[in-house]
Amino acid sequence: MAVLASLYESIAEPLVEVRRIFDAQIRSDVPFVNDLCEHITQFRGKMLRPALVLLTGQACGRLRQDHVGLATVVEMVHMATLVHDDVLDESDVRRRVPTVNHLKGNEAAVLLGDHLIAHAFRYCNSLGLPFGSDLIGRTTNTICEGELLQVHHRGNWALTEDEYFQIIGRKTASLTATCCVLGAYYAGAGAEVISALRHYGYEVGVAFQIVDDVLDVVGHQESTGKTLGRDLEQGELTLPLVHYLRHADPASRSEALGVLGNGHLGRAETIYQLLSNSQSIEYAMSTARQRIEQACRNLEVLEPSAARDALAAVADFVFYRQQ
Amino acid sequence: MAVLASLYESIAEPLVEVRRIFDAQIRSDVPFVNDLCEHITQFRGKMLRPALVLLTGQACGRLRQDHVGLATVVEMVHMATLVHDDVLDESDVRRRVPTVNHLKGNEAAVLLGDHLIAHAFRYCNSLGLPFGSDLIGRTTNTICEGELLQVHHRGNWALTEDEYFQIIGRKTASLTATCCVLGAYYAGAGAEVISALRHYGYEVGVAFQIVDDVLDVVGHQESTGKTLGRDLEQGELTLPLVHYLRHADPASRSEALGVLGNGHLGRAETIYQLLSNSQSIEYAMSTARQRIEQACRNLEVLEPSAARDALAAVADFVFYRQQ
Repeated sequence: MAVLASLYESIAEPLVEVRRIFDAQIRSDVPFVNDLCEHITQFRGKMLRPALVLLTGQACGRLRQDHVGLATVVEMVHMATLVHDDVLDESDVRRRVPTVNHLKGNEAAVLLGDHLIAHAFRYCNSLGLPFGSDLIGRTTNTICEGELLQVHHRGNWALTEDEYFQIIGRKTASLTATCCVLGAYYAGAGAEVISALRHYGYEVGVAFQIVDDVLDVVGHQESTGKTLGRDLEQGELTLPLVHYLRHADPASRSEALGVLGNGHLGRAETIYQLLSNSQSIEYAMSTARQRIEQACRNLEVLEPSAARDALAAVADFVFYRQQ
Repeated sequence: MAVLASLYESIAEPLVEVRRIFDAQIRSDVPFVNDLCEHITQFRGKMLRPALVLLTGQACGRLRQDHVGLATVVEMVHMATLVHDDVLDESDVRRRVPTVNHLKGNEAAVLLGDHLIAHAFRYCNSLGLPFGSDLIGRTTNTICEGELLQVHHRGNWALTEDEYFQIIGRKTASLTATCCVLGAYYAGAGAEVISALRHYGYEVGVAFQIVDDVLDVVGHQESTGKTLGRDLEQGELTLPLVHYLRHADPASRSEALGVLGNGHLGRAETIYQLLSNSQSIEYAMSTARQRIEQACRNLEVLEPSAARDALAAVADFVFYRQQ
């Protein structure tokens, strides 16, 4: 996080303001609800999405109060998806803190996520920014569609790379793209710049998700603070495995399918062994690397500035984090 | 439903329009998502909430297109809560149709509910009605708080009547109250009329929930089309039981607590036997009856009209349905 703090230096103050508004908005006069709302503030991590709104805003002109408000809304939407993701993935830990479902059951976690979504839209609506409200609403629907597609494909070991990118594009990259569009639009950028930054945000999101998927296979609970191997346990294919199943020799491929199919709890370990002896993790990381480079090429449309450099560095951080 | 059709006669056309907008809004170009969206339209029932928006609008003046839009939004919010409720209650059937969780798993049901909430807010935002958007946002938060409180009190056999009314006021009556405020406000009603209709809607909602709770104990799956005894299986107290536990003689009370505490699956049947031999179901129904009368007294603020009569008849219907 030390690295991020230096990248976020120019937006340190507005990020504090984002946290303050977030906490104030979700406060409840029902004590049980308020306790849960306070608990989830511990899940706050890299603040990547609000940072993208703020840095793209700076890179395109001047930060306005609208940026701070919208940055808060995207973080609220993101937090709601995290709380529901933990239910879907049956995760017990997030950022070394017990998840809401682990602590208070799935019911409380589902309802708390709903509560956060309603807060996000309600606060967004109060900002009086129709373009932003509509874009965030549409993006939330796209995220849901991506996650629904992912659930639909659980246990589909024949998932293609194209289908994989459809899923992560919707569930992850759509929101990072939207953050950058919001930053640029509300700094008064023109259509060309907005479009370039949308692509930057989309590519960063795709790379982020690929790295996340690789970390789920090879990472250590110690460093990621999450329950690992969850994608696999849920029958969700990640890019390394999609690649492996397509390129492995027939014998290795059937061994992998056998392990995937039997659903026993230790399969993450076995799959990791198979992947380690293949090129598939390297392939996934090199794909992520290309996406980051593609992202950064889109920044060339901007005038040189500290904020533009920070956006390039954030893209690099997404690639190098926790490896 | 034949009875309702006659009460809804004056709003038949706008109700058709509500259904049409609802279906068009939630359509998705992802086939799996679209199938789920089509499936849930079968859960559509009494359309009580949109009907309240439309009838109060008519009773206060002239129906506008705004009423139709807002009526659609409240139905979308309501449908989202139904889909998530079925997850929380582990219900398999709604309106004789399999629930989303039963058909496609809890994950799909959670995500579909999120999808509906996002659609509701997004469509609401597109209407350009800040008062309505803000009120619906606040109400959605109140509903979540009520449901969270209910989850919090699961297995609390010492729940007081006051706590029971706090829960159902938030989770059910807040939305019916909001429907009536929206109807009145967008027909140009003054503060006094809006306030009276808010009370009407609130009391109708409280009565609706009490009757629902009684039906969960005494109803038959045949007539309600829902999985019965769910409140009990989930450890949620309903008004008849709150009353019973407070007024039964010590021996009967400990028998009831013993049955409630052991958590076995047949306890709904045993509790029904105990309640049948007490005054508690009658007490709950007479409380609901009083709430309906209270609701109708609030209608006296309106000029006599067919719509006012329909509102009174809807309140009666809420009491007499499916008994």
